[in-house]
Amino acid sequence: MSIVTTASNTTAPTQLLRVKDHTYAYRRIGGGFRRPLLCLQHFTGTLDNWDPAVTDPLGDGREVILFDSAGIGRSSGEVPTTVAGMAAHALNFLDGLCVTSCDVLGFSLGGMVAQQMALDRPSSIRRMLLVGTAPRGGEDIMHLEKPSLARYLGDPALKGYSVLQRIFFAPTASSQAAGGAFIERLAQRTDDLDPASGPAVAAAQIAAFREWEQSTEDRFSALKRIHHPTLVVNGIHDEMIPVSNSYRLVENLPNAVLLAYPDSGHGSLFQFHDSFTRHAAAFLASDTPFAPY
Amino acid sequence: MSIVTTASNTTAPTQLLRVKDHTYAYRRIGGGFRRPLLCLQHFTGTLDNWDPAVTDPLGDGREVILFDSAGIGRSSGEVPTTVAGMAAHALNFLDGLCVTSCDVLGFSLGGMVAQQMALDRPSSIRRMLLVGTAPRGGEDIMHLEKPSLARYLGDPALKGYSVLQRIFFAPTASSQAAGGAFIERLAQRTDDLDPASGPAVAAAQIAAFREWEQSTEDRFSALKRIHHPTLVVNGIHDEMIPVSNSYRLVENLPNAVLLAYPDSGHGSLFQFHDSFTRHAAAFLASDTPFAPY
Repeated sequence: MSIVTTASNTTAPTQLLRVKDHTYAYRRIGGGFRRPLLCLQHFTGTLDNWDPAVTDPLGDGREVILFDSAGIGRSSGEVPTTVAGMAAHALNFLDGLCVTSCDVLGFSLGGMVAQQMALDRPSSIRRMLLVGTAPRGGEDIMHLEKPSLARYLGDPALKGYSVLQRIFFAPTASSQAAGGAFIERLAQRTDDLDPASGPAVAAAQIAAFREWEQSTEDRFSALKRIHHPTLVVNGIHDEMIPVSNSYRLVENLPNAVLLAYPDSGHGSLFQFHDSFTRHAAAFLASDTPFAPY
Repeated sequence: MSIVTTASNTTAPTQLLRVKDHTYAYRRIGGGFRRPLLCLQHFTGTLDNWDPAVTDPLGDGREVILFDSAGIGRSSGEVPTTVAGMAAHALNFLDGLCVTSCDVLGFSLGGMVAQQMALDRPSSIRRMLLVGTAPRGGEDIMHLEKPSLARYLGDPALKGYSVLQRIFFAPTASSQAAGGAFIERLAQRTDDLDPASGPAVAAAQIAAFREWEQSTEDRFSALKRIHHPTLVVNGIHDEMIPVSNSYRLVENLPNAVLLAYPDSGHGSLFQFHDSFTRHAAAFLASDTPFAPY
């Protein structure tokens, strides 16, 4: 394991880690004595989709570890078609890094993976940030075919990051301006880029969303077994994974605080990066077994 | 207007202010150069129901002003049967104090009064904290007859503050323990007490709740005219005014953040007083026009 940390996801070199039969691409940002923060990425997102305005401040006092799950970016293998399969890769990656316990920031799909990790190996996680995500059995999870999303995803005039601006941010001038600033920050990284995800990645991850929408026991009851201190964060106007899913999370997780932001959608953590990183740092700084911070 | 401030609601003297035809009982705690914080009280609550663990830390850097609305405690007059009537008294009181603009902490019924003040005289309020409250047209507001509340309110073995412990806190050992600590803090004030509210106060305030449950225009549309930066706070298991009302507040107020606490009910601000006062202070310290803090 090599340790190379830099201050920003704009410049952090991409590293490769071989664990068992897999190779994972990852980056490390910041450093310090606090618990490392593993960041689990959204639908089709790669290492390059992590906003430096979020990752870099969180690297003050701890290592922030970004990673490409199997089949994403420069990681080997196939994209699993279940969240459980993705959680197994995240745990395999942590084993390869010799990280026995970390904090986790799970955004969107990544938040589902974080919940599954907490269930499958509770000791692997100390504290969780679940942003713009949903519990198993949640509702209206990433239905890209619905008109409010399809009109942007199917617009040939929108390319690359421009689509993200539309679907991650609310349709107000203020939120769209924040979205514009977000894609400018992403575009600042120009070297050592991940390949963008293609249709096969999207198809496998959509299959995982559909499986995650199914309840496998009494609806939401698995959440009651997750006792980790958790901070749930969402934009009130999230079209990709509606905020009602965050309500269900905090109503059923026994130890979770909800922070919901106005005038924002799926990308609330990017829109309000100053506020979000301040709250996240305060939440992660706590050593109590309780979520309120 | 006399200015007498002390560091705690356990010892702050009760003062009287004559404005127009009314006399209002009030207390001032703390002091400093920040905007004063007007605290608007819950159903049947008097000055003595404000938890010093909440009021006192908030007095660091600002005056915290507690006040009895008309017909409560030692204030003269009749309890209005509408929230609008209560808002008029709060504005009259501020006029008497020569406070042209303040921050407001509205808890439960007090949060409804705060919303009405923001609509009736927007300039009177800079930032609002709305805790355990509901918008006009909200649902299941203070239905004391429902079994989950009636079993405590009708229990002859529960007297005085013991009832508050049951109905303000969740039915878990941890929340009830926090409730026990809360009533011990209230009981530390032994002199210069307000008379407790009787059945006439309760009846008038219940009438106000019933009126507030009625929509007077398109449901929740009045909220879109309240642009004040607002922090909405609720316990997830609030039986008195369910958390769904806080969801509706932040979904319709254009500039409101939601903070929801686990393992707690109506009195989440008292249960998590350290966290709540830290968040409130951070929110109130902001000079931006935006709620995220």
